[in-house]
Amino acid sequence: MIATLTWTPEGVRFIDQTRLPLEESYVLAENYERVAQCIEKMVVRGAPAIGVSAAYGVALGAIRSRAETAEEFAPEMAKVCARLAATRPTAVNLFWAIERMKLRFAGLVATGIEFDEIKERLLAEAQAMYEEDIAACKAMGAHGAALLPDEGGVLTHCNAGALATCGYGTALGVIRAAVERGKRIDVYADETRPFLQGARLTAWELMADGIATTVICDNMAASLMRGGRIQAVVVGADRIAANGDVANKIGTYNVAILAREHGIPFYVAAPWSTIDLATASGDAIPIEERPPSEVTHHGGKQLTPVGVGVCNPAFDVTPARYVTAIVTERGVLRAPYSEALARRNDADQALDIQRLGFLEGRGDLGAEFFEPLPENERLG
Amino acid sequence: MIATLTWTPEGVRFIDQTRLPLEESYVLAENYERVAQCIEKMVVRGAPAIGVSAAYGVALGAIRSRAETAEEFAPEMAKVCARLAATRPTAVNLFWAIERMKLRFAGLVATGIEFDEIKERLLAEAQAMYEEDIAACKAMGAHGAALLPDEGGVLTHCNAGALATCGYGTALGVIRAAVERGKRIDVYADETRPFLQGARLTAWELMADGIATTVICDNMAASLMRGGRIQAVVVGADRIAANGDVANKIGTYNVAILAREHGIPFYVAAPWSTIDLATASGDAIPIEERPPSEVTHHGGKQLTPVGVGVCNPAFDVTPARYVTAIVTERGVLRAPYSEALARRNDADQALDIQRLGFLEGRGDLGAEFFEPLPENERLG
Repeated sequence: MIATLTWTPEGVRFIDQTRLPLEESYVLAENYERVAQCIEKMVVRGAPAIGVSAAYGVALGAIRSRAETAEEFAPEMAKVCARLAATRPTAVNLFWAIERMKLRFAGLVATGIEFDEIKERLLAEAQAMYEEDIAACKAMGAHGAALLPDEGGVLTHCNAGALATCGYGTALGVIRAAVERGKRIDVYADETRPFLQGARLTAWELMADGIATTVICDNMAASLMRGGRIQAVVVGADRIAANGDVANKIGTYNVAILAREHGIPFYVAAPWSTIDLATASGDAIPIEERPPSEVTHHGGKQLTPVGVGVCNPAFDVTPARYVTAIVTERGVLRAPYSEALARRNDADQALDIQRLGFLEGRGDLGAEFFEPLPENERLG
Repeated sequence: MIATLTWTPEGVRFIDQTRLPLEESYVLAENYERVAQCIEKMVVRGAPAIGVSAAYGVALGAIRSRAETAEEFAPEMAKVCARLAATRPTAVNLFWAIERMKLRFAGLVATGIEFDEIKERLLAEAQAMYEEDIAACKAMGAHGAALLPDEGGVLTHCNAGALATCGYGTALGVIRAAVERGKRIDVYADETRPFLQGARLTAWELMADGIATTVICDNMAASLMRGGRIQAVVVGADRIAANGDVANKIGTYNVAILAREHGIPFYVAAPWSTIDLATASGDAIPIEERPPSEVTHHGGKQLTPVGVGVCNPAFDVTPARYVTAIVTERGVLRAPYSEALARRNDADQALDIQRLGFLEGRGDLGAEFFEPLPENERLG
């Protein structure tokens, strides 16, 4: 398994995604500030991976603190969380993870246990989120594999793979699961300008798994669709609004329109932590504008004339009407998404409460908390 | 005016478009083989510029020949034309220009004049085509400017500018003419992977003219359209079939679909030499597949994992139903294109015959041969 991020006694070890595929090197983040920098600089990227990285960052904030008591640490905790939350604005998993760590901290403080014990429990919470993330990806794979054709071309955009998660991947998890079930899938990877996550990361991790992969420029998708080479599209997400609008890597909306124009299903695979029921629609999702140099330069070399204007939004919003289905670890959801998301959320909150009762006394939420629902519980 | 290609006593001087925008250097092609190489390597590119370059290549073939008579040169002429025709398959202007030079040669041979005189006349023919190309661009500009909004964003793809023609440009000619008429146009230039003609060439030549230009990655277009920043799209063409299907730089078809989805007009600007009435539809247009290294490498630096599959079609076909209007030097054509193209062609052939009668005795076809029709003669 690709070690996207790994907890070590020294801190969080990240594979450096800015250097892949030509160089496989690692960065050790020994404290929360280094974790924050790794997220900002896209050493680690992908909504689920960012979320878990931030959780480890919060745990590191506590572990490295010179505070002697939880009360003394509390203002520092707020600072740590604020710093990590300020790294990137679009992926909601980041805020979800930080919020979960804050709640966990508050709960632990309320029990009155020692600060050293709280540090251990915060780390255990982050580690649980790591395990849950992989379990969620595998569940998404199990749910989503059935949606892909037995044989054919599947287009994906950006990297929603093992490198975007703690392992296995969301969109690429669905593809992996389909291949594991014997489907003959040819993957077409949009290179995904400007950061080239498709050309660099998706190609690298799928080749490592021996899955047939062809890199295309983003502007070739329509031509391949018209030529009958694409039977399905599957992408990840950075935030899904309550109405099913999907924020994802810039260019996803282009692909969604092209897919619909050619009658090709367009699937989004994302863990429940990507779903933001507090945001009514995609219009309210903040879209990160990244530095122009990502567009104007590559590998230190300038591409464009000096001084030209540049746009570099890192994400776009695909309205829900273009989305054929949303694959989550809780099952496959279909339109109308407002209802499907709310219904599933309510059902699972009830289930979660039961499970919490069952888990009471275990101290930490284990991977089974997010275990996949049986296939026959799928919605849609 | 940008000197895309210039005849000199030593041969054809090309601005090296593989090195722009950071380096403004020139390549001298002293013989037809060097002209062919400049076309193949995209030192010169753009359908109209390729056509005129090939015409100069044919003239150079004659001028540099050691043959003493036209009869002796005839088999060499066939070889020169075959070599130039083999450089790139999609832009029909290339074949149109070579065919015109062949016909001119046959006509001159029939008059029984000296081979030295034939050489001069062949060069004059190429020079006439050069002048006609600029005149056609200006006529397209005059016809097309009215189509653009008085104020707003105009998206273009690839480079259909001065650098793709002998000067002024087709799509960028329309934009230039609109700006000259006082319209406030913000140009959005798709960077146009893999060769980055938009980021490098369109940005460079529009900045030189002081026209506001913003470079975007190809995958950002839909997002900008949804944000209300694009009021029109105008692109060039490499070949337009008899039914109005348009072959143009890869990614054009993507943009056409996105434009229609957002209710934005999609205009194609091209000289009549780009229209191929002998090709029934876009399905019959040969699409050049270029080397994978254009996708996998940039500036000598590798982007993708070693051995990954790559697609690199240089063009795609936009079905006529996506095209709001075709702007030519003969006027603005609208659907149904089969009828509009055939009717205009017949009308202009009749007109050409009249003009040929008027021009008889001038020896060479001058720029006025392709002079723009008055605005009130526009079709559509």
